[in-house]
Amino acid sequence: MRTVEVRTGTPYQVRIERGLLDRLGQELLALLGKPCTAVILTDRTVDGLYGSRAAASLENSGFRTLRYAIEPGEAHKTLEDWHGMLTFMAQQQVTRSDCIVALGGGIPGDMAGFAAACYLRGVRFVQVPTTLLAMVDSSVGGKTGVNLENGKNQVGAFYQPRLVLCDPDVLSTLPPETLADGVSESIKYGMLGETEVFEWFENGDWKAHTEELIQRCVQAKANLVEADERDTGCRQFLNLGHTMGHAIEKNSDYRITHGHAVAIGMVLAAKLAMQLGLCAAETTERLTATLRRNDLPTETDLTPEQLTSVAFSDKKRNGGTLTLVLPETVGRCRLHPVEVAQLEKLVALSLQA
Amino acid sequence: MRTVEVRTGTPYQVRIERGLLDRLGQELLALLGKPCTAVILTDRTVDGLYGSRAAASLENSGFRTLRYAIEPGEAHKTLEDWHGMLTFMAQQQVTRSDCIVALGGGIPGDMAGFAAACYLRGVRFVQVPTTLLAMVDSSVGGKTGVNLENGKNQVGAFYQPRLVLCDPDVLSTLPPETLADGVSESIKYGMLGETEVFEWFENGDWKAHTEELIQRCVQAKANLVEADERDTGCRQFLNLGHTMGHAIEKNSDYRITHGHAVAIGMVLAAKLAMQLGLCAAETTERLTATLRRNDLPTETDLTPEQLTSVAFSDKKRNGGTLTLVLPETVGRCRLHPVEVAQLEKLVALSLQA
Repeated sequence: MRTVEVRTGTPYQVRIERGLLDRLGQELLALLGKPCTAVILTDRTVDGLYGSRAAASLENSGFRTLRYAIEPGEAHKTLEDWHGMLTFMAQQQVTRSDCIVALGGGIPGDMAGFAAACYLRGVRFVQVPTTLLAMVDSSVGGKTGVNLENGKNQVGAFYQPRLVLCDPDVLSTLPPETLADGVSESIKYGMLGETEVFEWFENGDWKAHTEELIQRCVQAKANLVEADERDTGCRQFLNLGHTMGHAIEKNSDYRITHGHAVAIGMVLAAKLAMQLGLCAAETTERLTATLRRNDLPTETDLTPEQLTSVAFSDKKRNGGTLTLVLPETVGRCRLHPVEVAQLEKLVALSLQA
Repeated sequence: MRTVEVRTGTPYQVRIERGLLDRLGQELLALLGKPCTAVILTDRTVDGLYGSRAAASLENSGFRTLRYAIEPGEAHKTLEDWHGMLTFMAQQQVTRSDCIVALGGGIPGDMAGFAAACYLRGVRFVQVPTTLLAMVDSSVGGKTGVNLENGKNQVGAFYQPRLVLCDPDVLSTLPPETLADGVSESIKYGMLGETEVFEWFENGDWKAHTEELIQRCVQAKANLVEADERDTGCRQFLNLGHTMGHAIEKNSDYRITHGHAVAIGMVLAAKLAMQLGLCAAETTERLTATLRRNDLPTETDLTPEQLTSVAFSDKKRNGGTLTLVLPETVGRCRLHPVEVAQLEKLVALSLQA
């Protein structure tokens, strides 16, 4: 078993091993000491694939289980759908002694984590990510939340899970586009410092390294999260590709999914860095080629205005300034504050690059 | 100026002085160091009385102000009304550098605090309570939240304000029943240990001691909150009268307000303590007489079943056990765990007392 320790306010482990889903009950029992009611919060797709197996494992270890599934997709990452999770738990008289199991990709994971943060002002929860994106990124670090009409993840909480269990076997049922979302976030960790991870995607042999890949991305994230749990400093590196990525997702009404939008966002960030003289053309070319090789998009039809409109409501905006993450080379990025008023002009220039 | 220090994870001050509302801008500027956008979240009643004065004070100190008012009343302490606050802030592009001012009684205070906790995963906020209940109780301690259909405050966060400003002059506009809600919570602090505060209400001269009364109740609460921010131990003393009180509020569809319901709940707790041999009849009589003298109710028509039904979804329930707060004498209570299954029978006996 590969293990990463995340040393936040309440420390926890990320465990990575094939077959972990069927040992969920044993792992949770070892964590909590005694069985309780385990509330599996998931989406309908994941529930159909893995809900019964997760519940069976929990029941075999003495847990009472409850299951609640939202509709899948970013369009359901709303306060209304989250309200449904909370009402379900209240109707079932779930107490503070119980535990939430967030089973699924980034969307049900973020929503279940936010439900755990707020239901009765906080109950315990564990993450069981079922997508590559959730394993390498969203299930670790304690960012939970839902979207508002105006933008992504505008309501949420910093709330850490007690345990994260990654079973790479469940990736076998992912549609190729969903797998590619996770590949995009993994390439992001390559750009931020994990050059070997980048090279696995560049060379096309990443599937031979899946477990180590998850471990290395999670460790990279844990290092940044431990240093900056509340996201006011170095954790901002994790936003590489995300500021413009959010605009791309939102302008497509979420038809372009998160990882695909981040892929385009990373290329735009590299082009913007070139405009500022921070990054060589070769780096942008290597990034673009690696994304394409892994079936990820690298271009957008959006205008500079569309690409920067959501920057004004970006959570990272500090008054009139926004901190961009800009690549310098594969394996090294920098935080670069820009005036929000200047951003549209810069983006226009980089689109011409 | 009277000041109480609350030493929670993020420490803060409660300041009590006549005329503070008109010095809100100066106080906030001293706290934050520089002006920003101040978002006044309130209800329509309070907005009509004090919204303009609060905004004027803030603007005189260089703040840009925004104001958003919900409909007044417990029926609007919902996720839907809270969603309205969040959407307003997102539309106005409020950032993490800005500050929320929770202006009003316990309901807008709890909701604004919860909005501050979750909007962009947390922005700064200050409490400016305008009711006696909010001054002595709800604005201090960091409990924020809204109701679900199933019960009170079932969704929320522990999130501390940066500052609490109490201006006793604003109590002059309170309707007598609303003032009585705060009297009830103040008498609760008397039962828990502030015997002199209890005697002011017993003798009918509390209005001569308003500022000291607020200070002493807030100090009593701060002591409990500092020792137990997350409400798993001694903070539970603050729930005296609240378990049955919540049932009374809910069964009346919130026509019986919080303090009035807590008054009845405290008398029921005293009678229950008598049944268990923990409390003399004299204590119950003193409590009952003091509540009546201050125009508070002490009886209910509800059945034992109705009074205990919400106990099953009480946040304090720990599996099958619920911790009751039971008076021993004026100035001393004890935490007493009971089996939830036994509660209805105990309540039935105490109603006959």
